[in-house]
Amino acid sequence: MNDSFPQLRKDPVIDRWTLIAPERAARPTEIEDPGHLAHHTACPFCEGHEAETPHEVLAVRTPGSPTDGPGWRVRVVPNRFPAARPDAGPVRSPHDLLVAEPGVGVHEVVIEAPHHEASISALPVEHVRDVFAVYRDRLALHGADRRLRHVQVFKNHGAPAGASVEHVHSQILATGRIPLEIEAELDRAATYHAPHGDCVYCDLLDRELAAGERIVLESEHVVAFAAWAGRFPYETWVLPRRHAASYERLSNAELTDLAGVMRTVLRRLSAVAGDPAYNYVLHTTAAEPFHWHWEILPRLTGIAGYELATGCYLNPLPPEEAAERLRKRG
Amino acid sequence: MNDSFPQLRKDPVIDRWTLIAPERAARPTEIEDPGHLAHHTACPFCEGHEAETPHEVLAVRTPGSPTDGPGWRVRVVPNRFPAARPDAGPVRSPHDLLVAEPGVGVHEVVIEAPHHEASISALPVEHVRDVFAVYRDRLALHGADRRLRHVQVFKNHGAPAGASVEHVHSQILATGRIPLEIEAELDRAATYHAPHGDCVYCDLLDRELAAGERIVLESEHVVAFAAWAGRFPYETWVLPRRHAASYERLSNAELTDLAGVMRTVLRRLSAVAGDPAYNYVLHTTAAEPFHWHWEILPRLTGIAGYELATGCYLNPLPPEEAAERLRKRG
Repeated sequence: MNDSFPQLRKDPVIDRWTLIAPERAARPTEIEDPGHLAHHTACPFCEGHEAETPHEVLAVRTPGSPTDGPGWRVRVVPNRFPAARPDAGPVRSPHDLLVAEPGVGVHEVVIEAPHHEASISALPVEHVRDVFAVYRDRLALHGADRRLRHVQVFKNHGAPAGASVEHVHSQILATGRIPLEIEAELDRAATYHAPHGDCVYCDLLDRELAAGERIVLESEHVVAFAAWAGRFPYETWVLPRRHAASYERLSNAELTDLAGVMRTVLRRLSAVAGDPAYNYVLHTTAAEPFHWHWEILPRLTGIAGYELATGCYLNPLPPEEAAERLRKRG
Repeated sequence: MNDSFPQLRKDPVIDRWTLIAPERAARPTEIEDPGHLAHHTACPFCEGHEAETPHEVLAVRTPGSPTDGPGWRVRVVPNRFPAARPDAGPVRSPHDLLVAEPGVGVHEVVIEAPHHEASISALPVEHVRDVFAVYRDRLALHGADRRLRHVQVFKNHGAPAGASVEHVHSQILATGRIPLEIEAELDRAATYHAPHGDCVYCDLLDRELAAGERIVLESEHVVAFAAWAGRFPYETWVLPRRHAASYERLSNAELTDLAGVMRTVLRRLSAVAGDPAYNYVLHTTAAEPFHWHWEILPRLTGIAGYELATGCYLNPLPPEEAAERLRKRG
């Protein structure tokens, strides 16, 4: 093969794509080393170490502070170990069962604080708001790039959640193909919407609010509830009350509320479950019908052979009990 | 809620089911404790400790040795922390978006050796053959149970692969519902088969053998190759040359070959990748068109937020390179 990488490859049988990205193999894994907080003098994400990352593409900065210098609160840089590249290609598809396409995309790191902090929920709420505003800004930018069809914002907190760096950060990976799980949600939202014009997420939210037993936290604009069929203990979904397909449409009032709710849920999760590793992931799309939302996925149980073989997760904690525990820490 | 557990719950939006199984929460996690091999005097899976497990439901034994006593080579017992139960139910589905059903099923542990060994590939090939024969026997039994529609055989080797016990073992979890990933493969096999009567896996095998670059190991009856769109580094699929939907139809000659190929691939994986954690999982079904196969899933990369959000995995190792390395250790 003389194909270039990264490339997206389709499973020969089912509609599952994999990003084969050899540049990822060079990633350092500082986080496997215990006692890491002591090592932050060597952390490339800390203020004063800006030269150790690629040039910033966005920063929330003190007015007048120099690009790629100190004085920032949130900083976005290209990922040094990208899973997708704007210039990916060409690739060959050897035949109809073995299909590949260039791994075209953009992979960025959002460094969420200038000091060596591991947890976003330890930051002041105004700082968390800056981070969630940066996600909105990047989505608006990448959404306008016609090569890209999906933008995934996600956080890996802790080694069991896939983090290789401790310093508080999240990632944005935008690609030219809508991934399987997102496509499934879009398809279902469209099928549900077709007969009566209803949004499946709006209806779900109404029914969860009426039932009450899975609600974790409510605010004026945002609701957090334990997922009915959560894959992980304490899996929590955070939805806006106002219907909107795209996170780009988030208002500033919603943003303030969202930052407060995410921060509080993560702090309570940490308190009830012993500061677990977790992921949070955004589901958003440019086109109606959809309803953007965040999923918080605590990694308190492993993903083992059964889950990988079947797609069915084993969760030992009933979501109603998870919600009750998370409410009590209010 | 006054529902009983375990229960299967459907995600409100997509066709993803979760098994909510509170009994799983009581599982011990000896494997997190380093230096575990030294602790095997306390291992409930070791010969002489048969009273510490539920009563055996099958064992490969020296003739005349007593049930639930020493003298076995492979022993199958009910899982003490089952994810599904024959007597599960009843459950309520609160409304059309929140659907649940009883977690009816059978959950068994296959203890693969009487002595405290961690790795199946360290056993003699005749012993590995006994293990793969036991899988066939259990599939035949559970396949005849009309309450069960899917039988999943899987191994979790090492803590990152979800193992909670070190002593060499695998699991069988049979449920009343065909899971998402299996259903997707069955659907695709049927769609592919319809126009010309071809099996997608037979065709894939032919093309992989013709291409050669992803072949790891060939024997008379079985072929191992690196998966074209492997989710994990060194992901390897093992298929029989002879078409058969169900693993129950495995002949004794195929069984001997399969044991040898699985053992060799796992030994080479251990050599090239530093004894990694891995899962192996069987895909099999009662009904044509399908083609049973094993998937070996080394857990050298984490499953992080991107994978959970999208269903798309990031794999840093091109499968052609994986195959080349696994061939060289032959």
